[in-house]
Amino acid sequence: MTQIINKPKDTVSQVLNGVAFIHQEKLVRIKDTGIIKKKSIETEQVALISGGGSGHEPAHFGYVGDGMLSASVSGPIFIPPKTSDILAAIKEVAGAQGVLLIIKNFEADVTNFLEAEKLAKKEGLLVDHVIVNDDCSIEEGSYKKRRRGVAGTIFVHKILGAAAREGMSLEELKKLGEAVILATNTLGVALASGKEMGSEEPVFVLEKGQISYGIGIHGESGYREEPFYSSEYLANELINKLLIQYDHNHTNQFAVMVNGLGATTIMEQYIFANDVKRLLQLEDIEVVFQKSGNFMTSTNMAGISLTFLEIKEEAWLKYLEKETDAFAW
Amino acid sequence: MTQIINKPKDTVSQVLNGVAFIHQEKLVRIKDTGIIKKKSIETEQVALISGGGSGHEPAHFGYVGDGMLSASVSGPIFIPPKTSDILAAIKEVAGAQGVLLIIKNFEADVTNFLEAEKLAKKEGLLVDHVIVNDDCSIEEGSYKKRRRGVAGTIFVHKILGAAAREGMSLEELKKLGEAVILATNTLGVALASGKEMGSEEPVFVLEKGQISYGIGIHGESGYREEPFYSSEYLANELINKLLIQYDHNHTNQFAVMVNGLGATTIMEQYIFANDVKRLLQLEDIEVVFQKSGNFMTSTNMAGISLTFLEIKEEAWLKYLEKETDAFAW
Repeated sequence: MTQIINKPKDTVSQVLNGVAFIHQEKLVRIKDTGIIKKKSIETEQVALISGGGSGHEPAHFGYVGDGMLSASVSGPIFIPPKTSDILAAIKEVAGAQGVLLIIKNFEADVTNFLEAEKLAKKEGLLVDHVIVNDDCSIEEGSYKKRRRGVAGTIFVHKILGAAAREGMSLEELKKLGEAVILATNTLGVALASGKEMGSEEPVFVLEKGQISYGIGIHGESGYREEPFYSSEYLANELINKLLIQYDHNHTNQFAVMVNGLGATTIMEQYIFANDVKRLLQLEDIEVVFQKSGNFMTSTNMAGISLTFLEIKEEAWLKYLEKETDAFAW
Repeated sequence: MTQIINKPKDTVSQVLNGVAFIHQEKLVRIKDTGIIKKKSIETEQVALISGGGSGHEPAHFGYVGDGMLSASVSGPIFIPPKTSDILAAIKEVAGAQGVLLIIKNFEADVTNFLEAEKLAKKEGLLVDHVIVNDDCSIEEGSYKKRRRGVAGTIFVHKILGAAAREGMSLEELKKLGEAVILATNTLGVALASGKEMGSEEPVFVLEKGQISYGIGIHGESGYREEPFYSSEYLANELINKLLIQYDHNHTNQFAVMVNGLGATTIMEQYIFANDVKRLLQLEDIEVVFQKSGNFMTSTNMAGISLTFLEIKEEAWLKYLEKETDAFAW
């Protein structure tokens, strides 16, 4: 499919310039880097940074704002940002309270972020990190051992961002982040593979009428293909798989996120959200917070993911509900 | 392409139930109708209603909120809402200050909205309307005479919504709306035709690598097909066509909206927005307000539209900048 780009090599840089133009009142791009940061950095609080390969828009620049991230770092499409860019971002936002890196659990992302953390510490900066691994698509006995970081990362941005604004220390934020991550699970399905920008080739092949369970956000194919029956059937499958992750009883409270992977219409997202609502009511599970939209995409993949976060402390819900001016929340 | 739906006949109703679930703190659906309305209606101000066929999400329910619409009315996909639903919406929100209908200029939409207005007036309610016709895709000598209402409608929602909240009268709002509509122009292009929900057939045929200028939001094909060269070339074409509509000189101030038609990635939207910025700078045109995103889609059509609104009075910009809690603004 034709796509609205110029020279492919300029794609990410031009995207970031577009972001800086459209959101010029609040965001700036640091020239020649993948960094989008808040125009005014609060030096009295811990600064949060997240990032990763491009192709997941509005992640992560859409979450830069008061009460969420101080800066995001974008790499090339599906390739993590360079260590030097991450280090530059740390220096841009670091105050006396330090910097927390929110890293999605992909090997190359973790390597580059931790390398940048090490270099920043050498320069005397206070830096720590959490690694988000909300993807629970690994089937028993699968060779795919790694729980990846996917849409649940946005809940981590929001909760830690609100807590950081309230003055929580770096150490406390790391602890809070790890607790939230443990309570977060996501499962995604594709209805059609995405194509890389400017390419006609699907990243993986999916037969007509089939869906793939457990896909990743970089075009990774899932662990099982099945015919598509209905939104309700799909919601039921995903809910059952997600609930296995929890010690599920009638006192559970959940935050729920329905995430479109890029090419899925808003209509479909709401139909699916409606099915999730009805099925969780039948399970007597209380949904105390809910969102639906394109939060972490995989370029133009048709599909959806469902994220559950069990609210284990009242404060988590309060942090989710706090206002932010990050444009994609 | 497989889509995440249940029975096709239930699609719109389930979408609206999903909207009411996800946005339950602020919005409610009126059962068995296409109406989404604010949970609490301000009876001290003129209430605004807009609506149309489904398939343009987040239009129009995404613009229901404080400082924008009081209610939206959705019809079946690409079919305007029934007169009885529009009348019911008027009754739901009407206070002593009256109701203004914001209608997109499609024949069937205008017919049903004006019929509902007539019936409401018979019942003693104070109702008036504006008709948005921002689509300037009609080529000289074309048989397509009607300027349709497309993405520029969202600017009308925003400006009138902020003015209504400030206490502007129905008569003044109509006058303001008409002035804003006269200053608003939109031009859209498709890179691929959309498909109706659940259908494998494209609504119109577009050869690979071709783009269609002047497409509508109901799958209407455009007036001219051309090869796609680059985002910059496309931006230049659209800007030139839009500027013809204005008495263009160096004192113009514009609000600009880049609108994705559904299947166009956020990356492409920002790349295009960046080209628009650079080209308008070269023309010495001052952009004083800018937005980019999926504001009025055409189900899953790949494409983009560009809207210009010439800011003729300072107050218009102030109204655009006022806060609103409508979730899609």
